[in-house]
Amino acid sequence: MNKHLLCSLAITACGAASAQSSVTLFGVVDTYLQVGSGSVADRSQLASGGTGGSRLGFRGVEDLGGGLSASFWLEAGLLTDNGSGGTTSTNNQTSGSAGGGGLTFSRRSTVSLSNSVGELRLGRDYSVAYYNRFEFDPFGNSGVAASQAYASALTGPIPTRVSNGIMYFLPSNLGGVYGVVQYYLGENLRNAAATEKDGNGGGLRLGYKAGPLNVAFSTTRTQYASTAATGDITSTNLGGRYDIGAFTAMGGYYREKVGTLAGLTGKGYQLGGIYRVGAGEIKAQWSTYKTTAAGTPQSDKVSLGYVHYLSKRTSLYGAYGHVKNRGGAAAALNGAVTGANQASSGFDLGVRHTF
Amino acid sequence: MNKHLLCSLAITACGAASAQSSVTLFGVVDTYLQVGSGSVADRSQLASGGTGGSRLGFRGVEDLGGGLSASFWLEAGLLTDNGSGGTTSTNNQTSGSAGGGGLTFSRRSTVSLSNSVGELRLGRDYSVAYYNRFEFDPFGNSGVAASQAYASALTGPIPTRVSNGIMYFLPSNLGGVYGVVQYYLGENLRNAAATEKDGNGGGLRLGYKAGPLNVAFSTTRTQYASTAATGDITSTNLGGRYDIGAFTAMGGYYREKVGTLAGLTGKGYQLGGIYRVGAGEIKAQWSTYKTTAAGTPQSDKVSLGYVHYLSKRTSLYGAYGHVKNRGGAAAALNGAVTGANQASSGFDLGVRHTF
Amino acid sequence: MNKHLLCSLAITACGAASAQSSVTLFGVVDTYLQVGSGSVADRSQLASGGTGGSRLGFRGVEDLGGGLSASFWLEAGLLTDNGSGGTTSTNNQTSGSAGGGGLTFSRRSTVSLSNSVGELRLGRDYSVAYYNRFEFDPFGNSGVAASQAYASALTGPIPTRVSNGIMYFLPSNLGGVYGVVQYYLGENLRNAAATEKDGNGGGLRLGYKAGPLNVAFSTTRTQYASTAATGDITSTNLGGRYDIGAFTAMGGYYREKVGTLAGLTGKGYQLGGIYRVGAGEIKAQWSTYKTTAAGTPQSDKVSLGYVHYLSKRTSLYGAYGHVKNRGGAAAALNGAVTGANQASSGFDLGVRHTF
Repeated sequence: MNKHLLCSLAITACGAASAQSSVTLFGVVDTYLQVGSGSVADRSQLASGGTGGSRLGFRGVEDLGGGLSASFWLEAGLLTDNGSGGTTSTNNQTSGSAGGGGLTFSRRSTVSLSNSVGELRLGRDYSVAYYNRFEFDPFGNSGVAASQAYASALTGPIPTRVSNGIMYFLPSNLGGVYGVVQYYLGENLRNAAATEKDGNGGGLRLGYKAGPLNVAFSTTRTQYASTAATGDITSTNLGGRYDIGAFTAMGGYYREKVGTLAGLTGKGYQLGGIYRVGAGEIKAQWSTYKTTAAGTPQSDKVSLGYVHYLSKRTSLYGAYGHVKNRGGAAAALNGAVTGANQASSGFDLGVRHTF
Repeated sequence: MNKHLLCSLAITACGAASAQSSVTLFGVVDTYLQVGSGSVADRSQLASGGTGGSRLGFRGVEDLGGGLSASFWLEAGLLTDNGSGGTTSTNNQTSGSAGGGGLTFSRRSTVSLSNSVGELRLGRDYSVAYYNRFEFDPFGNSGVAASQAYASALTGPIPTRVSNGIMYFLPSNLGGVYGVVQYYLGENLRNAAATEKDGNGGGLRLGYKAGPLNVAFSTTRTQYASTAATGDITSTNLGGRYDIGAFTAMGGYYREKVGTLAGLTGKGYQLGGIYRVGAGEIKAQWSTYKTTAAGTPQSDKVSLGYVHYLSKRTSLYGAYGHVKNRGGAAAALNGAVTGANQASSGFDLGVRHTF
Repeated sequence: MNKHLLCSLAITACGAASAQSSVTLFGVVDTYLQVGSGSVADRSQLASGGTGGSRLGFRGVEDLGGGLSASFWLEAGLLTDNGSGGTTSTNNQTSGSAGGGGLTFSRRSTVSLSNSVGELRLGRDYSVAYYNRFEFDPFGNSGVAASQAYASALTGPIPTRVSNGIMYFLPSNLGGVYGVVQYYLGENLRNAAATEKDGNGGGLRLGYKAGPLNVAFSTTRTQYASTAATGDITSTNLGGRYDIGAFTAMGGYYREKVGTLAGLTGKGYQLGGIYRVGAGEIKAQWSTYKTTAAGTPQSDKVSLGYVHYLSKRTSLYGAYGHVKNRGGAAAALNGAVTGANQASSGFDLGVRHTF
């Protein structure tokens, strides 16, 4: 069989001679054993993305001269335990689910123009409200140990990413200030229906990074027709990290609201850290989340993990999480089922390989 | 993160030392704002492929010696506004839709053997009736300004491409004459059912290209059981272009018929041109289409556009279209909805990047 | 259009300077005309994979030092006749079908750690019961001439591959002994339901290869709730091949059982060979399969084929198969339909190109 290798050597060659035009193939294969236990039922699974989503992507950049560049980024989510892909939303509403489990550039699908005043980016990308969730979580919002500080259930079909997005990113030369403004379209007919603006939304994120410090604030609002059951979804959060030698402290505050008037509100906090020791990282986190639903359901979680780096590209990892529920909450970990006010725990054991 | 670059430098190296065997990664990311207005409802969307479909593909060629070569081409359609892929048809009938929005080599999936007497190509590829539609349309049959000279609604599940195709292409050394004969299979059981030949079909295209002139004729017929509602679909067209300095004139005639006897017939014309000025192209087109349905519905369209090339690979573009309806027609642009005999208009604003 | 070539030249460069880290793009485009006839209905199709599944894949290996390496393998099935992809199962049960016809890494999706004591592999891969079916079938278990020695119908949703697999492969330095142990998860909730273990399973394969000889034994068992209709599926087989100059003899025995007590059992045999002559291979096979269902249905098949290699990467092929049925069996070839105890035959004619 004829092989077509794309090797590290090529980077140097391209970097030196032709930096102005390149296409990069990249990916992550992160597969792990995921075990969860709860008061109702336990579950064991082989799963994907224990320390960050498995993926396959193509990206490139072209130097257009005069400080201007064009770039693209196509990144598909993978479930490496079974080979299927992810799904995306064509319209930021539940009606727009697409992909059907085939390979889909659900993680990112963008084209950009960039120069010294910033980057204009079009397509599907993270919701600006999502960055803080993984940047300031020692576990990168992945696996059994991920922060419990917010609830996807409250954020509707766009907890993580938005389609049909128009983004402007601040340039990187602002003395540590960074930021992005995002607008996205629900693409419904403007026909005077109550739901004609569903899926439209926008947000902004502003941060400051200098030396050991990195802090960022973000807020978004997605429009949904305000009926008894639903309504506009707003999500606001503030997170930060601070390096002290081999230790990094992290924390975040999250607030979500569904319905503009007497809606349901959820609030969460997280506090954690990473301690680098030898070729490894020890991680720990405490997080909590409660909503204004009947009974004021609340879940508190402790997480512990260790990542051992076999190389820059490959690591082994283990993680543990334990969640306690009260006020009627029934949060469960790793696919287990637990009863109201009962605890749940789980652990992950996996390998992550990037290319 | 380790990067695997596939850079332009590699082309030279491969081209010189190993031209007889190569695999190429290629793609288009074309994302645009699409706004449409009609008498019933307007719509704004972020969309994909304003100046030609977004895509990701792999293709390669192997020199087998003695003038013979083998090649393959796998090209997937992309909706870069949301990261989803396209769909295909497994059997050239509506029952055969596959892909589900995941990445699918819906644009082309072929293997070929070529030598000096032509190319034998197997798989999914353009219907021969489709080439003229984009080669002789200044807007490449894409976006709001695309020709209105035919109706996909009349051409059933294979307006653009066919699956299970067996194609023979004339060689390129015939003094400007080019052509292709195509046969495709519906793959139904031969069980004496009325529909046993549904999706079977074939066609041919013949053209002549020399100096500033390029003209081509094509005709296809796809079999569907002739009931009151449907019947065989025939599509015939003739198109051409002529270069006069910086200007290229284009035109085409299209005729479609559903049902072999007293079927529904549609006819269309288009006339347009491209004017190259500096790093840009100004495009304009007039097109019209009418059918033999009750009331003789007819739609007339004017289109105007501009493409600005930032490089060979990257361009910015804008386009405008306006359609008038009569005889009960209700053609609308860019996802808007318009009433019978009402007008509709729309514009596109986008960026296209190829790799 | 800018091309990004990945050529053979790159192999040498990478192999010499950076063997410790590489990513390989690979694929097969195998497209063929498939004609079948039976007593009830005939069928003609353009199909994919007549001599082994069409595919597109990415794989890579990283040298971690000290004899340890990490690797990944993502391989998607393709239907090159129409551009669609395959499906996978997320849970080794029929409920877990995913992929929807989009590109899916349904053939293999694994990450591995390897050293001198073997390879640990996680993800989706062949069921260990499947290797013998194609390694000891002259036709590689593909196309009209494939062995009739077992029935996919009996092996449920995992006749070929398993998801959520944990595999251990023996190292290659055991004097010709090779083997793999495999365990896989159905991932159901452990909730005391009768079906809670459905899709769980495991198996092993042991072989010996030395000089002209290669033999292997495998056995697997997948758990399904034992009701009247179903039950655990066990599959056991033994196969081998022996080279005598230009001739290779092949044979195999297959036994499948559904239900642990009074279940349905199927048994099959195959005997065949490959004769290498010039740039070609002549192949022949006889196979038979019968089950314990009412009437003791049995199917006997003769197969004949020829592959002509235009190069190491490209071949043309033809194959013929004829199956006779008795005891109520109605096995039919190439999509035809035949009546109980009636014969069916078919032929393939295709081209295979690998990259």
